Order: sequence, then C-alpha cells, then structure tokens
Amino acid sequence: MLLQETVQRIGGLDGSAIDKARDRMDNLIKPPGSLGELERIAVRMAGITGNPRPRVGKRSVIVMAGDHGVLEEGVSAAAQEVTGQMLPAFTGGVAGIGVLSRHAGANLKVVDIGVAGEVNVPGVLNRKIRPGTANIAAGPAMTRDEAVAALEVGIAVAEAEIEQGSTLIALGDMGIGNTTPSSAILAVFGGYDAADITGRGTLINDEVLENKKRAVTSSLEVNKPDRSDGVDVLAKVGGLEIGGLAGVILGCAARRVPVLVDGFITGAAALIAAAIAPESKNYMFATHLSAEPGHRMMLEMLGLTPVLLAGMRLGEGTGAALVMHIIEGACRVLDEMITFQEAGVTDMEEDKLLKEEN
Amino acid sequence: MLLQETVQRIGGLDGSAIDKARDRMDNLIKPPGSLGELERIAVRMAGITGNPRPRVGKRSVIVMAGDHGVLEEGVSAAAQEVTGQMLPAFTGGVAGIGVLSRHAGANLKVVDIGVAGEVNVPGVLNRKIRPGTANIAAGPAMTRDEAVAALEVGIAVAEAEIEQGSTLIALGDMGIGNTTPSSAILAVFGGYDAADITGRGTLINDEVLENKKRAVTSSLEVNKPDRSDGVDVLAKVGGLEIGGLAGVILGCAARRVPVLVDGFITGAAALIAAAIAPESKNYMFATHLSAEPGHRMMLEMLGLTPVLLAGMRLGEGTGAALVMHIIEGACRVLDEMITFQEAGVTDMEEDKLLKEEN
Repeated sequence: MLLQETVQRIGGLDGSAIDKARDRMDNLIKPPGSLGELERIAVRMAGITGNPRPRVGKRSVIVMAGDHGVLEEGVSAAAQEVTGQMLPAFTGGVAGIGVLSRHAGANLKVVDIGVAGEVNVPGVLNRKIRPGTANIAAGPAMTRDEAVAALEVGIAVAEAEIEQGSTLIALGDMGIGNTTPSSAILAVFGGYDAADITGRGTLINDEVLENKKRAVTSSLEVNKPDRSDGVDVLAKVGGLEIGGLAGVILGCAARRVPVLVDGFITGAAALIAAAIAPESKNYMFATHLSAEPGHRMMLEMLGLTPVLLAGMRLGEGTGAALVMHIIEGACRVLDEMITFQEAGVTDMEEDKLLKEEN
Repeated sequence: MLLQETVQRIGGLDGSAIDKARDRMDNLIKPPGSLGELERIAVRMAGITGNPRPRVGKRSVIVMAGDHGVLEEGVSAAAQEVTGQMLPAFTGGVAGIGVLSRHAGANLKVVDIGVAGEVNVPGVLNRKIRPGTANIAAGPAMTRDEAVAALEVGIAVAEAEIEQGSTLIALGDMGIGNTTPSSAILAVFGGYDAADITGRGTLINDEVLENKKRAVTSSLEVNKPDRSDGVDVLAKVGGLEIGGLAGVILGCAARRVPVLVDGFITGAAALIAAAIAPESKNYMFATHLSAEPGHRMMLEMLGLTPVLLAGMRLGEGTGAALVMHIIEGACRVLDEMITFQEAGVTDMEEDKLLKEEN
C-alpha cells in the first residue's frame, strides 16, 4: 500500500518555478550560461521544490546496509563480516562517510536493512528484512514481498528525515559484494551482456573478476528478471540495501525533495526507482562519476550529469556527500547574485554572442 | 629584488611528510585507493605543508582586476567599463565570486592592479601599475619593469594574506578581454598555432572569434616572446592581473601554502609562474575544468588534475572557490578516518586485489 500510494504521488516538475528561476539566472551579472551545470542544478532545484529561489537547509545522508548471498561465488576481496563491522565506524564518524557527512553538515542515518550477522550498534536503525540475500547466481535474491518491504523501509526512512526538516538527501550504501547485483541490474535494464559491464569494484584481480562475471551472467540466466517490472528485477537480482535506497528515492520524489545519487550501487537503486516510477528521475541529481566503468552507462540511462570526477569508488555516499556543498552553492548563486540592472553593470552586446542553443 | 628572493625560496615537497601521509591513507578503513583524487590531494597537502596530517584553516580568494588594450581589436562582447563596474559587486558579495567565496568561508581580497578607469570602491586594494595594458596585437602589453612590478604586487598580496593566517589561497581574475592574452600565453608555452587554441570565451560569435584569432596571431608575430623567459612572455603578451596572479602563486609557493588555480586566465598565470619557477607547480592544485577548450591543454602542461567538471566559464575564481570544500574534505578524510587496526575491521584479502600501480 505505502509503495503504491508513494508512486502515485510522484509528479512532474513545477514549470512556473522553472521559468522564473531560468529568467532570473539569465539576467544575473555574468555571461549567460557561464556557470554551466550549476545553472541547470539551481533551475531544476526550483522545479523540484516549487520555489523560484530555492535554498538548501537541513540535509541528510541515508546509508542502507545489507549482505549478499552471492559472496559464496568468490566475487569479492573483502569478507562478509566487514559489512556489519563498518557500521560503528559510520555512526562514530570515523569511516569515509562519517567524516564526509560531518563535513557536509549532514545528519547521517544508518539503516540495517539486511546485514547477515546481528548488529548491535547504537544509532543504527534496525529495519532488517532478512539476514542478507540468497545467492543470485543460483536463484532469486529475495521474494517479491521482501522486495516490496525493502522499498517501503526506504520510503519510511526518507519520510522521517523529511518530517524532521531535511531539504536534501544523499544516498549511501554498505554491503560487501554489492557491485555484483548492481552489475546484474545494469545488465538487465541496459540490455548489456553481463560480462561486458562487470567491473573490478574494490579492484579485484583477474581471477575474482572471472568469478564475478560468471555470477552475474548466471544470475540473469537462472532468474530471467522482467525489465518492465522494477520490483521483479530487485527481487531476483538485487539486494536489500539497493531496494531500501530505491525506496528512499521514491519517498523523496513523492515529497518533492531532491535526492543525490552517489556511485555504482546507488546508481543501480536509481535504475530500480526509475523503472517503478519514471518521473522519479526528475528528483535525482548525479553527483560524481565513479571509477567503476558501468556507472557512466547508468547515468546516461538516467539522463543525469555528474559534476565531480575524482576517480572515487568507495561508495557509502562519499561522493554524494561532497557534492551537497556544490548543490547548495548553485542555489545560493541564484538567490544571492544580482542582475545587470540591479548592479548598474553594462550588459553584454547580444549581437556579438552565439545564439543560445537551449 | 622581492621577485628574485621569492623565487629562490621555492623548494620541493616534504618527502617525509608525504611518506607518512601515504602510509596512513593506505591503512584507513576503505579499499586502498578508493577515494581516488582525494587521496592524492591530501598526500600532496602533506608534502606542501610538511604536516603528515594537514588541515585547512583560514582561506582566501584573491581576485586581481586589470584591463586590456587589445579590446580595440574587437575581441569581446563586453565593454571595457565592465571590469571596473563589477568590483563593487565583488566586495558587496553579490557577484558570482562574492557569493561563492562567502559559501567557501573564504576572505575575498580584490585588487585593482590595472583597471583602465578610476576605481573608488571601498575594500578594493589599489595597486594599480598602469590603467590597462597596451594593445598586444600592435606591441608589448607592458614594459619588463611593469611585468616585474605586477608579479611583486601578487607576491606581496599573497604574503599579507598568509601573515593573517590564510592556509589555502584561491586565484580569481577580472578583466574584460583577458582570454585573448591568456590564449597568446598558451600558444607561446605550448608551441601551438594561435588560431587553433583560441576559444570563444563568453561565447562570442564567429565574427568576434575571427578578430580574436587575428589578434592572438598578431601578438606573437609582432612581439616574438621568448618562451624560456616567463617575465618576457608576461610583458609582451600578458596582462596586469595575469602577472599579479602569477605573483600570488610564487608567493604561496615560497611560503609553502597551497594555491588553487581556477580557469583559463588563472591557468595562463600558472604557466607564467611555472616558467619563472618550475617548482611552483608543486604548490598548485587544479580545481575545475573550464568550458574554454584551451584550459585542458594548460592543465596537461602543468601536470594538474581537476576534480570539478561543470562546464563553468565565468572566471573570477568561482570554480576554485567551490573546490576549497573538497580540498578540505580530502584533508579531513586523512586526519579523521581511522585505520583497519584501530577500527577492528577485517582487512581486504591482498591476494584477491590487483597489484598497486603507483
């Protein structure tokens, strides 16, 4: 019910706020278009929020953690226990996302949606649906009901953050082995041969990469996911944290709150969300381009443009957290800069400029 | 004298601090190398400052403003008076760099080093060497003495900011027409044909672009700058603000303070600084990749990697100001994350990872 209601509430952008924002942006004291992607970010923020001069206020990073049965295929250089071991370092502020969400001024929300072992970490929200997925190389990751439950956990967590005033939400993931289901999801929606789009994740060597390619290929053959049904893809070749993150996106879109996609795993969650509710793409921003090669394909499929290209491949939401400052800067430019007229600055000579293309 | 003394003081990075920083970075709880360029930034910050766990404290954006005689060749879509008109919007915090330096938490220092008209703006430092350069298409921009004076203004301004506690300095420029001398500087040092590397700046149309290409070509033919002599190149085809910014770089390098290059004009200043003191490159960070095509060539010549790719082409230091947050984030990661051992997290299995390449 919650999933269905949420999807029905997702609509288009506010065209009137977009027009007003674009008109103001074009008259600010700078050559038209000269702030590039920042201008497009600010204008879309207006369309998302319905405010022609949007501001970023309180912000959150939501990290979903889950484990993966496919680990038994030898697809990773890290042990399954690491997923749970990392959580105290998240909440304690000493892992990558702990440091970078503090740096972003964001509230960090960590959710155990499917860690294999028991998690007893103060500050970690227990929403465990099952202790890790089943091995996707041998059968479905989870039941359809479990996939819906994962999505609904994400929706509820997003709604709770928004209720507490969050105006910008970044997605983060933790789950040893989760580039394997993410590769499978990319292969399904992109129609790619699994072996072509499976990457090295944490920089696994050739032997582990071969295991991973075999596992991804097998996951598609065994499960035959239906790419027209996002919930089916999630249940068959996804992950619990991927479902939770797709739910966060849907929850944000339904409440008209912008949501920041991080790297390859949150990109897979974005593909799931877009399959369930295509208009949810309006509310997503890409942040960085991951070093994982398939990430570029995901962002192209979603029609999203990253601004940070730093060769990062850590996950956890670290790229998205770093870009919060840039999203806020784009909004401040639109709100705080003044126009040529207001400043008494001589405008550009239009007849010496290229005609605008968009 | 100040220039000579400053250049002599510029040395290499602190190898011991670099080794300690790299060792710590490799043991933090993340796959090795997974924070990409952030890791290289933090390690180089250690080498610059001599502190294995560097922090970013107070920070400054230094904007140098100057005018250009080459404007009479019809190379721009904006009028010369705009250079001076923009300065109150800088100090008033309502131009692009006014907003984004406030957003970066930086002290914005605006210097009139060569604006054509009289500038009476509270807060703008008057260090005018001459009221704009001469037309480089017809002769040298300035005398050699004036070029040295411009460099020394920059050194002195950088030293004053550092005296007041600045730990990170971003470069910004203001000068209608200044992509023209910057193109000439790129052509000289890169050995390029001027027409091939001259871009559209504020998006000038084909007619204005042709004027600009002719002016750049002519500036090289008429002046015959000596690429082995950075001061000669600056005097013959440069600009006063470009000289001032090159001086800021030299002043930062001599005091072991990191300096952030912005776009195409500050990139030209970086080429001048690197020609005068090659080791100054150690202290520069690229920030964003400008939409001006020649910027990529400049950064390659300097061996610098940008992290922000947002198609910006405003100048003023706007890209560099936005990236201050990322530089600080990189340092916080190195200082505030903990190691696998400290966290009690199971380390990666080395035999399943690719061998490190660097």
